[in-house]
Amino acid sequence: MKCDFISLACSGIQDLVPYQPGKPVEELERELGLTDVIKLASNENPLGPSPRVLSAIQQGLSDITRYPDGGGYRLKRALSDKYAVAVDSLTLGNGSNDVIDLIGRAYLGSGDEVIYSEFSFVAYSIVTQASGATAVVTPAKAWGYDLDAMLTAITECTRIIFIANPNNPTGTWVTEQQLTAFLDQVPEQVLVVLDEAYTEYVEHPEFPNGLLLLERYPNLIVTRTFSKAYGLAGLRVGYAVSNVQIANILSRVRQPFNVNSLALLAAEVALSDDEYLAQGMALNKQGMALYQQALTAMGLSYIPSVGNFITVDFAMDAQPIYQAMLEAGVIVRPIASYGMPQHLRISIGLQEENERCLNTLNRVMNL
Amino acid sequence: MKCDFISLACSGIQDLVPYQPGKPVEELERELGLTDVIKLASNENPLGPSPRVLSAIQQGLSDITRYPDGGGYRLKRALSDKYAVAVDSLTLGNGSNDVIDLIGRAYLGSGDEVIYSEFSFVAYSIVTQASGATAVVTPAKAWGYDLDAMLTAITECTRIIFIANPNNPTGTWVTEQQLTAFLDQVPEQVLVVLDEAYTEYVEHPEFPNGLLLLERYPNLIVTRTFSKAYGLAGLRVGYAVSNVQIANILSRVRQPFNVNSLALLAAEVALSDDEYLAQGMALNKQGMALYQQALTAMGLSYIPSVGNFITVDFAMDAQPIYQAMLEAGVIVRPIASYGMPQHLRISIGLQEENERCLNTLNRVMNL
Repeated sequence: MKCDFISLACSGIQDLVPYQPGKPVEELERELGLTDVIKLASNENPLGPSPRVLSAIQQGLSDITRYPDGGGYRLKRALSDKYAVAVDSLTLGNGSNDVIDLIGRAYLGSGDEVIYSEFSFVAYSIVTQASGATAVVTPAKAWGYDLDAMLTAITECTRIIFIANPNNPTGTWVTEQQLTAFLDQVPEQVLVVLDEAYTEYVEHPEFPNGLLLLERYPNLIVTRTFSKAYGLAGLRVGYAVSNVQIANILSRVRQPFNVNSLALLAAEVALSDDEYLAQGMALNKQGMALYQQALTAMGLSYIPSVGNFITVDFAMDAQPIYQAMLEAGVIVRPIASYGMPQHLRISIGLQEENERCLNTLNRVMNL
Repeated sequence: MKCDFISLACSGIQDLVPYQPGKPVEELERELGLTDVIKLASNENPLGPSPRVLSAIQQGLSDITRYPDGGGYRLKRALSDKYAVAVDSLTLGNGSNDVIDLIGRAYLGSGDEVIYSEFSFVAYSIVTQASGATAVVTPAKAWGYDLDAMLTAITECTRIIFIANPNNPTGTWVTEQQLTAFLDQVPEQVLVVLDEAYTEYVEHPEFPNGLLLLERYPNLIVTRTFSKAYGLAGLRVGYAVSNVQIANILSRVRQPFNVNSLALLAAEVALSDDEYLAQGMALNKQGMALYQQALTAMGLSYIPSVGNFITVDFAMDAQPIYQAMLEAGVIVRPIASYGMPQHLRISIGLQEENERCLNTLNRVMNL
């Protein structure tokens, strides 16, 4: 082999470091010979699937030899009904990661600039680099977004600004007033992607609903997912809501069968399963209170979070703590790759998982 | 809204026409108020899912709230065992469409040229356009590939050549001797993507197995899918086998959870289900013979096919025939968008589906 097939690749791709997902339970059990591992590392819904979703999937199993409905007719109609958005403003994706990726592919090229904040979801930087665009990373303020700094960073070359609300991995958020004041000042040709992956968990009256802002801001794209509160991370389904021109462009670059048939079915049913959602919210609220109380009692500080996770500041390299917890069968999430080497992100789990996590953490801290 | 969000998009994307999938059964039933519709339009496995796959999915259902294993550890190991290829030469995709897309994103940019044949799978042109590269389309020879014309088309700018073997939508194929003679003359820095989506259906002794050619040709990438013979079109899973440098590059641009957890599970089990595969092959052989015989008896010519479909030449605009069959509840595939307006592609179905299709065709032709 004479060629170097790495250097043959597009330059943005060559510099990419692939995303590091949370360690799967199976992998840890395999590596350390453990059983009874718990995973609080990927902000998944700890309830397990809703019975209504399971029964819908059962119904759909005989159809897996057929291609999915590439148009996603039924799921789009259900989303349209529930959120009062037009069917042709919707773009379905293989998780919201896919939708974020589509936006980047459709609107970014070399020479373009993308603004996102320090400590924000890593998918934004991957999409930026993969398209050969330039990342403009603004500093955070108290681990959250500095929207003024983001405004100041806008240039002629800015094409996209990513705002996750709440943000992952910090759990911080911007109010409706802050967001609209920001959007009022963003030029219309700059797309603002408002990533609402965790929106269902937030109850604060000042927390904005991006869908209600779409008419006022045609450059706004709201992305959401079924991976978190709706409990379908394994099936991969997310969506964007935008003006119809943007949706039209995204549909051109989208892979025709990007969402699998069981995901389409499950998401449609999940959307109407208010009971499952409410149960998950209640569990999360309870778990969050437990962590806040216990962490404070342990003398550990954390970033106040409105998501389904809490990010703990160890004020020292967190890697040994992560490792010790791993060896005790508790997987949490190191976020050094986000520039936060002294923090660990813990997903809120079932009560017994939270208790085991906190007990393990307490033991590990006192070694 | 002052902006035109269509013209803001990257230029290659603006020119894209989205892929037109085969009409879903449900959509036709909805539109025409029909029941009992049969679909022979998307080259799906007519057997329905294998019982072993169904039972594996049942086992995996409780896990859909968890993210899939982004590394695809188990499926990769199963593929590696079955085909004697290295685990790190494998790239998993959300269908082989995803893998083809990844290759385009990783290796194509503006100014690059991509060679593919007239009448070849439409994904190649979508990927080329989406990346801003230039398509060089070589004329077909007897509806199949003219490999000499493809060689002649190679320039300094050529980055990728797409070869589907057998080809969809024609069912034509190239022999091992033709393929290796071709590969011997392709410069090593030009990637050859050998799309073997239908390879399982071919029994001819001169038909090549791309996997056995990988060592000899480091610029070769073989793509395969579980959507056809393995009967998992709805779940979306395909893969590429390549040299490890290329696999490494593809892993960087790949979405971390591009293959859903039920697809990973189903594909792993399907791979070992030789009985299901054999049953599908036998059914296809029988059905193909029936179509060949009946079409000849009806005085219709067709392109000899080694796939699970047969493409019929009506020597006149085929759209009215397609439409009349649709109204009788039989969905076949118009391929005017492939530049074949006088042909229809018919997927081989169950015996009763094939008979109904042929009877309907006969009736429609004699109207």
